[in-house]
Amino acid sequence: MNKGLKIATIGGGSSYTPELIEGFIKRYDELPVSEIWLVDIEEGQEKLNIVGNLAKRMIAKAGLPIDIHLTLDRAAALKDADFVTTQFRVGLLDARAKDERIPLKYGVLGQETNGPGGLFKGLRTIPVILDICKDMEELCPDAWLINFTNPAGMVTEAVLRYANIDKVVGLCNVPIGMEMAVAELLEVDHSRIRIDFAGLNHMVYGLDVYLDGVSVKDQVIKMVTALDDNSFVKNIHGFGWEPEFLKAINVIPCPYHNYYYKSREMFEKVKQEAEAEGTRAEVVQKLEKELFELYKDPNLDIKPPQLEKRGGAYYSDAAVRLISSIYNDKRDIQPVNTRNNGAIASIPDESAVEISCVITKDGPKPIAVGDLPVPVRGLVQQIKSFERVAAEAAVTGDRNLAVLALTINPLVASDTLAKQIVDDMLEAHKKYLPQFFGNFITK
Amino acid sequence: MNKGLKIATIGGGSSYTPELIEGFIKRYDELPVSEIWLVDIEEGQEKLNIVGNLAKRMIAKAGLPIDIHLTLDRAAALKDADFVTTQFRVGLLDARAKDERIPLKYGVLGQETNGPGGLFKGLRTIPVILDICKDMEELCPDAWLINFTNPAGMVTEAVLRYANIDKVVGLCNVPIGMEMAVAELLEVDHSRIRIDFAGLNHMVYGLDVYLDGVSVKDQVIKMVTALDDNSFVKNIHGFGWEPEFLKAINVIPCPYHNYYYKSREMFEKVKQEAEAEGTRAEVVQKLEKELFELYKDPNLDIKPPQLEKRGGAYYSDAAVRLISSIYNDKRDIQPVNTRNNGAIASIPDESAVEISCVITKDGPKPIAVGDLPVPVRGLVQQIKSFERVAAEAAVTGDRNLAVLALTINPLVASDTLAKQIVDDMLEAHKKYLPQFFGNFITK
Amino acid sequence: MNKGLKIATIGGGSSYTPELIEGFIKRYDELPVSEIWLVDIEEGQEKLNIVGNLAKRMIAKAGLPIDIHLTLDRAAALKDADFVTTQFRVGLLDARAKDERIPLKYGVLGQETNGPGGLFKGLRTIPVILDICKDMEELCPDAWLINFTNPAGMVTEAVLRYANIDKVVGLCNVPIGMEMAVAELLEVDHSRIRIDFAGLNHMVYGLDVYLDGVSVKDQVIKMVTALDDNSFVKNIHGFGWEPEFLKAINVIPCPYHNYYYKSREMFEKVKQEAEAEGTRAEVVQKLEKELFELYKDPNLDIKPPQLEKRGGAYYSDAAVRLISSIYNDKRDIQPVNTRNNGAIASIPDESAVEISCVITKDGPKPIAVGDLPVPVRGLVQQIKSFERVAAEAAVTGDRNLAVLALTINPLVASDTLAKQIVDDMLEAHKKYLPQFFGNFITK
Amino acid sequence: MNKGLKIATIGGGSSYTPELIEGFIKRYDELPVSEIWLVDIEEGQEKLNIVGNLAKRMIAKAGLPIDIHLTLDRAAALKDADFVTTQFRVGLLDARAKDERIPLKYGVLGQETNGPGGLFKGLRTIPVILDICKDMEELCPDAWLINFTNPAGMVTEAVLRYANIDKVVGLCNVPIGMEMAVAELLEVDHSRIRIDFAGLNHMVYGLDVYLDGVSVKDQVIKMVTALDDNSFVKNIHGFGWEPEFLKAINVIPCPYHNYYYKSREMFEKVKQEAEAEGTRAEVVQKLEKELFELYKDPNLDIKPPQLEKRGGAYYSDAAVRLISSIYNDKRDIQPVNTRNNGAIASIPDESAVEISCVITKDGPKPIAVGDLPVPVRGLVQQIKSFERVAAEAAVTGDRNLAVLALTINPLVASDTLAKQIVDDMLEAHKKYLPQFFGNFITK
Repeated sequence: MNKGLKIATIGGGSSYTPELIEGFIKRYDELPVSEIWLVDIEEGQEKLNIVGNLAKRMIAKAGLPIDIHLTLDRAAALKDADFVTTQFRVGLLDARAKDERIPLKYGVLGQETNGPGGLFKGLRTIPVILDICKDMEELCPDAWLINFTNPAGMVTEAVLRYANIDKVVGLCNVPIGMEMAVAELLEVDHSRIRIDFAGLNHMVYGLDVYLDGVSVKDQVIKMVTALDDNSFVKNIHGFGWEPEFLKAINVIPCPYHNYYYKSREMFEKVKQEAEAEGTRAEVVQKLEKELFELYKDPNLDIKPPQLEKRGGAYYSDAAVRLISSIYNDKRDIQPVNTRNNGAIASIPDESAVEISCVITKDGPKPIAVGDLPVPVRGLVQQIKSFERVAAEAAVTGDRNLAVLALTINPLVASDTLAKQIVDDMLEAHKKYLPQFFGNFITK
Repeated sequence: MNKGLKIATIGGGSSYTPELIEGFIKRYDELPVSEIWLVDIEEGQEKLNIVGNLAKRMIAKAGLPIDIHLTLDRAAALKDADFVTTQFRVGLLDARAKDERIPLKYGVLGQETNGPGGLFKGLRTIPVILDICKDMEELCPDAWLINFTNPAGMVTEAVLRYANIDKVVGLCNVPIGMEMAVAELLEVDHSRIRIDFAGLNHMVYGLDVYLDGVSVKDQVIKMVTALDDNSFVKNIHGFGWEPEFLKAINVIPCPYHNYYYKSREMFEKVKQEAEAEGTRAEVVQKLEKELFELYKDPNLDIKPPQLEKRGGAYYSDAAVRLISSIYNDKRDIQPVNTRNNGAIASIPDESAVEISCVITKDGPKPIAVGDLPVPVRGLVQQIKSFERVAAEAAVTGDRNLAVLALTINPLVASDTLAKQIVDDMLEAHKKYLPQFFGNFITK
Repeated sequence: MNKGLKIATIGGGSSYTPELIEGFIKRYDELPVSEIWLVDIEEGQEKLNIVGNLAKRMIAKAGLPIDIHLTLDRAAALKDADFVTTQFRVGLLDARAKDERIPLKYGVLGQETNGPGGLFKGLRTIPVILDICKDMEELCPDAWLINFTNPAGMVTEAVLRYANIDKVVGLCNVPIGMEMAVAELLEVDHSRIRIDFAGLNHMVYGLDVYLDGVSVKDQVIKMVTALDDNSFVKNIHGFGWEPEFLKAINVIPCPYHNYYYKSREMFEKVKQEAEAEGTRAEVVQKLEKELFELYKDPNLDIKPPQLEKRGGAYYSDAAVRLISSIYNDKRDIQPVNTRNNGAIASIPDESAVEISCVITKDGPKPIAVGDLPVPVRGLVQQIKSFERVAAEAAVTGDRNLAVLALTINPLVASDTLAKQIVDDMLEAHKKYLPQFFGNFITK
Repeated sequence: MNKGLKIATIGGGSSYTPELIEGFIKRYDELPVSEIWLVDIEEGQEKLNIVGNLAKRMIAKAGLPIDIHLTLDRAAALKDADFVTTQFRVGLLDARAKDERIPLKYGVLGQETNGPGGLFKGLRTIPVILDICKDMEELCPDAWLINFTNPAGMVTEAVLRYANIDKVVGLCNVPIGMEMAVAELLEVDHSRIRIDFAGLNHMVYGLDVYLDGVSVKDQVIKMVTALDDNSFVKNIHGFGWEPEFLKAINVIPCPYHNYYYKSREMFEKVKQEAEAEGTRAEVVQKLEKELFELYKDPNLDIKPPQLEKRGGAYYSDAAVRLISSIYNDKRDIQPVNTRNNGAIASIPDESAVEISCVITKDGPKPIAVGDLPVPVRGLVQQIKSFERVAAEAAVTGDRNLAVLALTINPLVASDTLAKQIVDDMLEAHKKYLPQFFGNFITK
């Protein structure tokens, strides 16, 4: 293969794009990209132009022979691509704001991945992803789909079950953030830390933690119990875990576990924040506006440091690191969302899990963990049930399944609330949920 | 075996005893019992005498050659017993009242089996049961332990994992009550209804329902969605399931599922009832007082109809039916708590499950169901995790594990709340939890 | 359902038919059959007439209102049938003779179920069975297919994987024969014996043996080790198991296990018998000729006792007992070939196993056994692998798969022998294996 | 850790030792060994001295600060060791000659790992290994046991089940030899080839083969079918696989599969070789004599090239590569024998499997493969059953279990032959099987 690689980025007008571009620039030595196609939809054209032009300036400054293409023609972007990355958001941040606001009315957290918000984000996103997969089958059958679009677990599950492409990886910055946070805690370089991850997206546990290959789990647990803020990524400020709980569970929770192991506290916090400064989506909307103002500056030719506040820390690094490991058959260990293939007992082989994998040119190969520790099995299964019912609702447009998905979700846990929230949100997102309105008759 | 059977009933002073005696009388033809030993502890002596004398009058009236023994000497009762039944309550109804009251202070349901109340009932009960098992190993190694003591799932799990006896069955009246309720709904005799049960104690699902062997699940689901009150046993009045939910989940929930699929509504209901008429324990305390007044009447020689209000409907029938099927190798199908042995995928072979079994002289043989339907897997696993962590806490006296058990319990879902409730309840039940106070230092 | 049951018997001209008719006569009280359609193909018309007329005389003698229909029109027979039984033999006994003779030339046992003979019987039979299933989908979608056609395990596997009907049971007389033999050994009535069966067809083990519900396995193992002839059914005379082996394996093997645990001795025996008196098929051909001579006798109106020598002992009883238990929702325990559904660990849920089941109107429900004992797991898996590869060869006509099936079969264990035998037998059975000759090009 | 590593090599007098020493010399840069303790038993003292002095000369020539200790004091060697390697042979090559000769008398292959020879090698070796493990618990609890002693699968199984140490890896040169052979076939450097291995020791399959990370399995299968000699390691010259078989099985067999997929041909070949030139042990005995003559030469200070004929090619490389990857937390992929931990479905988590693992400082982490391909499941399970029954026989000294192990072994497949061979070999190896003669009464 003597020509360079072609990357197609769906949702190229995202504010994250500069980080991705920076990633490709940094790793150009090992990853000879020759074309990056940033593709977006008509409503996103203005943003695409702004961020695309910044991307071009960044490449120019770096002096690399990478062509940046800005386009609304998805097929042209996908044609013969080597890697397809997805970072689009159906309905933009307005939709996310509704995902967060509406459940709050019912005394329930929206939670943009594994809660009602995540359900509706999934219902909007999955049909689009499956459509992209169909195009890929035809236009770039050998390409890898690297999905960052949330809810990454539900989306990867849907692709594994309902699409005809095998080459899909779901990516999240939570595990890398946990490793970074542990490194910081221990005051060592990130490269010396490795965590054995297993679970689901935003429901992942660190089963063990190593410093230079030697387990330091006990020490880390001890240190974390002494923290006021248990969070490991910058955009979720949590609370200290109770030492009793953390010692007994004896694994490292991820920041999203605050929603399940501190559900009441999280609800209060999110509600107060929503009242004081707006929901996360509303805050991000402001940040994005500012970012795009910055991006417009024709003198800007680097990723502006303000992007870090946006919350996508390590995304670029995780994404380009993964692409490079696949391309170069690096066989290094990275946590990704992939087909379980027996790695976690009691989860079906064909379901998506988030787990430490060896990354080869043939894709991620999950490292077997046997059965999960007893105390964490239930919650992982519960979210997997939620993801599966939700994915089925997304492809069938069956409102009953949407109600079921929320009823079995631990953040809702009421069929009546579930029904009310579903009806309210179906109405609010009507425009993006044609599968529910083509034949609205309940099956 | 030409001598009759010896039954030892631990907690013989219970108000349920007349029902059990009635059961043995009714089935005497197939179950030739010659001795029933009602055994209790010193604090229960008065009640034992009252209810024991009623039992004697009942037997006398029936004209059967069964000897009733009233004793505080457990060893004498166990010696060479054929069946040991347990219906004791450590700490009596006072303890249950605390199990229900204390969590309410924290905005959490007590729930006497799978909630904080159930945890503490388990912590009090399991050491006593394991002690009985030790005695049985020595005094009646061939006897079957038929456990009705709640939390029956957790207790059966503990016996399977921590005792050296194999012959244990946990029994609950919920499944039989569900069959009765379906029979009533369809206006047919109970004997014509069979439900395929699978799950855990108080977390059991009807996977299918048959009338004369033909599935009527769709019809039953349709009828249940039309009910105002979804409950199938008399002591839990629930609410109508949302039709959307019930159609999509496509199995028959048990009444206890109201706690998980109507968690907010149940909390409000229980809280209001506790304020209005007292908690269930407090109501039962009054009922029991009245019952024992009745029992004292030397002219009473049958089970008084008022016992039905007590909430133990079908217990006697379920218990004596089970004992008879074992004794007679009947090979009929009954739902009991037993070793999974692979019947439900993803639950360890050696864990307790509540499932339809063929009852043989060699014990219950569970009918394989493969994997549970997707939507119910999570909650079942979660309660199994709770039961296992709770059972381990009971045998180790490790407070951290008690905190963990409540944190992962869907009714609590907060490590901070869990800790507060555990500490409050440990103090309240101190007298019955020596394992936590011998060495209170957190491990 | 006020009309009687309609039975369709494919291969109605079989010499076994009188036994089946006798079975329906004996159980008429509980199984109100009104029509039995004996259907055969043109080549079988003469036999069909002979045996069909005997059937009519038997019914007449019994004075029952059952209509016997003799037909070559399979569709007419299947139309609205309640139960379809299959006892046909593609290529008749001539084909079986080849199945037995050809492998012997290569120093390999033919073995009509799990050896090269079984492979080729499967290759001939499976397409016909799948064709019947297609007809059933349309003509009698609610009927049960009760298959006695060997190789019953491979055929049931094929129906479960490649047909669209769920209601299929594979039936074999080996387990019932084992129970009979144990009863005889212990000199008790058959009804008092129950064996927990698990494994595959002709590869089934008695995991435990009960007399009146109490395990007598140790005693039976001791008694069997003392026998000269370990066989449990009349048509395979084996040899005594070595006591060391039987004690250590600690389960009851079936007579077909002689092929795998006495492979050399069985080969010598079968070879000598083939030389002396002809192969089993050749012997049976003579017996059948004699039987049909008897059947012609217009005065014969009962099953002639000579049929017992034919080797199908207990078939009739097993078949009609099964049909009656399904029809009457008897919920008794019978060993049949059915979907595993998790009952035996490590065998896929959707594969066929031979196992003790509760027989309900909704079909057989296998009793969970967890994992098989360590020493027997390998052989069971090996035969399951053989069955699956063979079934796939049957539906695809892929010669490579036929070679693979024999190579992994423990009776062959050589790729070169496998190839030679496959080529020789493909040629010999060419007429009945169109799927291999339509496109003989190796895939 | 500023001191160098201490290596203890049990069976240090082996002719393989120079290869191991060469390995440590080659990788000294990454593996700072400071002491190598070669330990042997009294009967081996002379060989120990010869080979030990050669080792010293090799180290001296390399100019490295490694101390070579020659000792009969195992405890001294184990004390504070970092890695313990085992390459001893109980009963020396004389015993192996018997393992090979005796079964041949019965028309059965000896096969030094998975046949009768392997059973008896296991019975002699396992008690010694378990004894070493006990010493390690006390003397070097943090050390890794790197076992090359055959039968490596059975020995690793025994350590995992019956010893109290977790840090054990079984090592074999077969997989590395397969990779070498594929590299040679494709005429590329070994480093560019990676095979996904899964199975058991000497029963391992290449599920896929990659060149520079891209699957070349189809191409390799095509090339191998064109070979006259299918073997991948130098000491087993096989035969060409039948193309039909290899295409259908669609995985890469290992050379030892000739015993199971060409059982008749292998028997003939081994028998003829035994008659012509002696069994493998007898040939090796001559080679060893010559090797030790060479080793005595005080001018020899390198590994003599003649050692390659001995049959242990790549052992040294495999062993030191593994030790270095553990020590350096290299996280590279290597095939080893380790705890399954769910990596291969249907094999218990705690059983040993031979599988591609990521090698970390925390040991090998197997890569999940889900379930094995259908055609290979049976044989793998059969050998696993054999290994487990054999290991149990080794620790209990139960002769019945030894008979059972051979009866279920596909190379024997007869309980009578099994018994005869067991009795003959028990007598022949009496000296090394005290567990069978302390209490010879059959249990």
